[in-house]
Amino acid sequence: MSEQPRRTVDELAARVGGRVIGDGTTVIGWVNSLETADEGEIAYVEDEKLFEAAKSSRASCVIVPVAAAIDSPCRIEVAKPKLAFALVAEVLHPQKRRDPLIDATAVIAQTADIALTAFVGPHVAVGEHSRVGVGTQILAGVSLGDNVVVGSECVIHPNVVIYDNVTVGDRVILHAGVVIGADGFGYVRDQQSHHKFPQIGTVIIEDDVELGANTCVDRGALGRTRIGRGTKLDNLVHVGHNCDIGERVVIAGQTGISGSVIIEDDCIIGGQVGFGDHIRVQSGAVIGSKAGVLPGKIVRPGVWWGIPIQPLDEYKRLNAHVGRLPRMRQELKELLERVQKLESALQKGE
Amino acid sequence: MSEQPRRTVDELAARVGGRVIGDGTTVIGWVNSLETADEGEIAYVEDEKLFEAAKSSRASCVIVPVAAAIDSPCRIEVAKPKLAFALVAEVLHPQKRRDPLIDATAVIAQTADIALTAFVGPHVAVGEHSRVGVGTQILAGVSLGDNVVVGSECVIHPNVVIYDNVTVGDRVILHAGVVIGADGFGYVRDQQSHHKFPQIGTVIIEDDVELGANTCVDRGALGRTRIGRGTKLDNLVHVGHNCDIGERVVIAGQTGISGSVIIEDDCIIGGQVGFGDHIRVQSGAVIGSKAGVLPGKIVRPGVWWGIPIQPLDEYKRLNAHVGRLPRMRQELKELLERVQKLESALQKGE
Amino acid sequence: MSEQPRRTVDELAARVGGRVIGDGTTVIGWVNSLETADEGEIAYVEDEKLFEAAKSSRASCVIVPVAAAIDSPCRIEVAKPKLAFALVAEVLHPQKRRDPLIDATAVIAQTADIALTAFVGPHVAVGEHSRVGVGTQILAGVSLGDNVVVGSECVIHPNVVIYDNVTVGDRVILHAGVVIGADGFGYVRDQQSHHKFPQIGTVIIEDDVELGANTCVDRGALGRTRIGRGTKLDNLVHVGHNCDIGERVVIAGQTGISGSVIIEDDCIIGGQVGFGDHIRVQSGAVIGSKAGVLPGKIVRPGVWWGIPIQPLDEYKRLNAHVGRLPRMRQELKELLERVQKLESALQKGE
Repeated sequence: MSEQPRRTVDELAARVGGRVIGDGTTVIGWVNSLETADEGEIAYVEDEKLFEAAKSSRASCVIVPVAAAIDSPCRIEVAKPKLAFALVAEVLHPQKRRDPLIDATAVIAQTADIALTAFVGPHVAVGEHSRVGVGTQILAGVSLGDNVVVGSECVIHPNVVIYDNVTVGDRVILHAGVVIGADGFGYVRDQQSHHKFPQIGTVIIEDDVELGANTCVDRGALGRTRIGRGTKLDNLVHVGHNCDIGERVVIAGQTGISGSVIIEDDCIIGGQVGFGDHIRVQSGAVIGSKAGVLPGKIVRPGVWWGIPIQPLDEYKRLNAHVGRLPRMRQELKELLERVQKLESALQKGE
Repeated sequence: MSEQPRRTVDELAARVGGRVIGDGTTVIGWVNSLETADEGEIAYVEDEKLFEAAKSSRASCVIVPVAAAIDSPCRIEVAKPKLAFALVAEVLHPQKRRDPLIDATAVIAQTADIALTAFVGPHVAVGEHSRVGVGTQILAGVSLGDNVVVGSECVIHPNVVIYDNVTVGDRVILHAGVVIGADGFGYVRDQQSHHKFPQIGTVIIEDDVELGANTCVDRGALGRTRIGRGTKLDNLVHVGHNCDIGERVVIAGQTGISGSVIIEDDCIIGGQVGFGDHIRVQSGAVIGSKAGVLPGKIVRPGVWWGIPIQPLDEYKRLNAHVGRLPRMRQELKELLERVQKLESALQKGE
Repeated sequence: MSEQPRRTVDELAARVGGRVIGDGTTVIGWVNSLETADEGEIAYVEDEKLFEAAKSSRASCVIVPVAAAIDSPCRIEVAKPKLAFALVAEVLHPQKRRDPLIDATAVIAQTADIALTAFVGPHVAVGEHSRVGVGTQILAGVSLGDNVVVGSECVIHPNVVIYDNVTVGDRVILHAGVVIGADGFGYVRDQQSHHKFPQIGTVIIEDDVELGANTCVDRGALGRTRIGRGTKLDNLVHVGHNCDIGERVVIAGQTGISGSVIIEDDCIIGGQVGFGDHIRVQSGAVIGSKAGVLPGKIVRPGVWWGIPIQPLDEYKRLNAHVGRLPRMRQELKELLERVQKLESALQKGE
């Protein structure tokens, strides 16, 4: 375990392209929130509602929006304080590194190729012809099948399972319990039973992907399943066979994606969303949590909501109408009475 | 493995504060249901509909409500039979104990501190400065990171993963595949990519918590995530960073909780519920299965239902209105025709 | 690892009861899709829309419907091409076999009984009195408790956990991270805390079952939980205590089933469906994705949809009515105005 890094405010400001107001030689060793930060720590404020909190923060430095009315003794002005804060955290709290090691308990096939700078923890299993790249950390209990490729500088957390023939890029983070390359869910029924549709494809996880704990990405049936560069999935997400998830996509927890779904670059998908198969979500679409998307649907850019999904505006409008149903029912009843009166009046009049 | 305990009806009645009717010296070794219980076993009945079944049960003893019209030859009368049955089961079927052991295959950091009475099973990994308390059982394949604290009398089932710096209290049960302390799901977007918002906080699991299989509790981003004393989570639940779940909360399977949600003491949450971030659920609230709660919402005590959540009564009322929509549509159509007739009649009359 | 099998078109046609048109001696070594198939590979076409694609496929053989207007030089005509393709894949891509082995790192109780032809991989743990049948493969990091029975020809993928006393039949496939036999979710509340309702039952997984990655099947509270012969569950499914799932049932990803639910033979359940407890789903019922079924419900044969479930037709009709609400609101408003005019006219007339 390496020492906790420390930097001066000047150094941090240079890292994020910010302007220092106050003593730039102040030394910072930790990021924290406005409320809990203490001496030697840096916090940030972006929302104007929190400017007062920023003023009373005990942080040694606060990252603030340009020209914000905050008179903290030491601050860094930037255009995007939250982004700057994340960049500062990358410097002060870099990913934990482990010295190169192959633990004595690891079981590694003779044909496997583990980089000299890799860390392979206790109880890891690596199959035939598999490769682990430079600086990658394979933590306890991970199982890599045969012909698996894991790139460089990855962190594969404990008890991850990667099946045969899966390829993982560089700087990928797989959280504990992730399963990549299990058989897709496809069967063909005959009279007596279900026969497995062949699940002999593979999975490609591109660079800079992060998958949350216990998330599952199935292998392609015949082709491949792909998670594109820079895409982030939360915990307990299910990605079916032959899905093609683009670059920089964000998918929140417990969302489920059936087979052969395409999600193009830069989409944002909420939690517990369900996708039927053969959907195409076009680049720039945003789908709200708990939405349901019917099989075969093409989802255009914009914000979508509901089961089945509708444009958010429409969803809200319909929801408001449903909320007014009791009043509408009442109006209809009153109207009925008025019409009855009119009819009686007219009948008398005749 | 210890012998299966046996107790007399008198002993069990004393344990639950009940009154014995019949032969209190009858020996009981097992709990069972009314239908399948046999000699030497104890069953319970609480629901009046099952009184007949209780009479014909082959159980050697039945726990019954006070003054219930059940003439079984041997019974224990108590105010709450189901609760008494659970307490009896704690006596007859205590949690399995294992003799103290550190399995030869376990890999334990030299700075770790394992209590002499703890059981550490095969293929366990324990990191630097981690501590395991007295009587605790760490089963096969569990991975504890660095600076992890696990209290006394816990059962950590196979393949659980606990990340660095997490604290677990006493008498905690973590079922297989649980992941505690993975990074929360937070990113800040710049032009080209997503930067990880720092996820350097921790998790505190208090005493007497039980987490179901493959449930995930993320670490705090800057502060901590907490699961309060006596709280029970079912399988495949997702708890996001910085959530604060109170005491004696019950959360059913596959519910997902976004970051910074507060659920106060004694709430009951159904299965597959989804919570947006920064929600506060006040003590005593009950949220039905499959409900969806919008970000920032304050949920007051009472029973809630639907997406987005509404008070159960209102949900039912609106649902009934939706069910009547076809009739309403028909009524509106008929009314339109009557108005048309009135208009024609009036026009003629002029 | 065995050689990739190869077969002639004649041999494959005999396997599926098909008629060869073209050169039956052509050798085939791989299944593939119409678009990506190449020489030495076999594809299939069933949907008439893809007949053109079939004609231009580079596959050495295509499985086609009887009398289909496809003039590929080499083809096999069958009644059900997709089924035949699956059967051909069983021949060309049989499940990976591993030579009998008990890995030196496996920890196996002395009273356990492992068949001589079984494969037991690295870091496996097998408890007292457990049995593993002939030809079964227990892959890395799997944990079997005490008194577990696993039948013959099973594949138990890495890091699966099976608790004590669970029985698994023959030819069962459990994907990575599956947990079988964790405690069901049942508590009895007293003033201060939740007491565990006894969870001392078991689980029976019958022959030919397949469970997807990270799926959880809880043990019975007093009796047993059962997954019937030939039933297939996708990833991240939750099956509660005492459920009885029949034969040849198909359940898609992330569906959650509360305690004591009965799902009869041949039902089809979509993804992310939620079941309350004590439901009975009758044989032949089909429940669409994201549906919610209320506790105690009896679901008759037919297609069901929505929360709470309704017959699909009714669901669609109500959904259409909700979509027309804005227009209905408008019609009601106009009608109100017309009635007002009528009232004024009549008043004047008097």
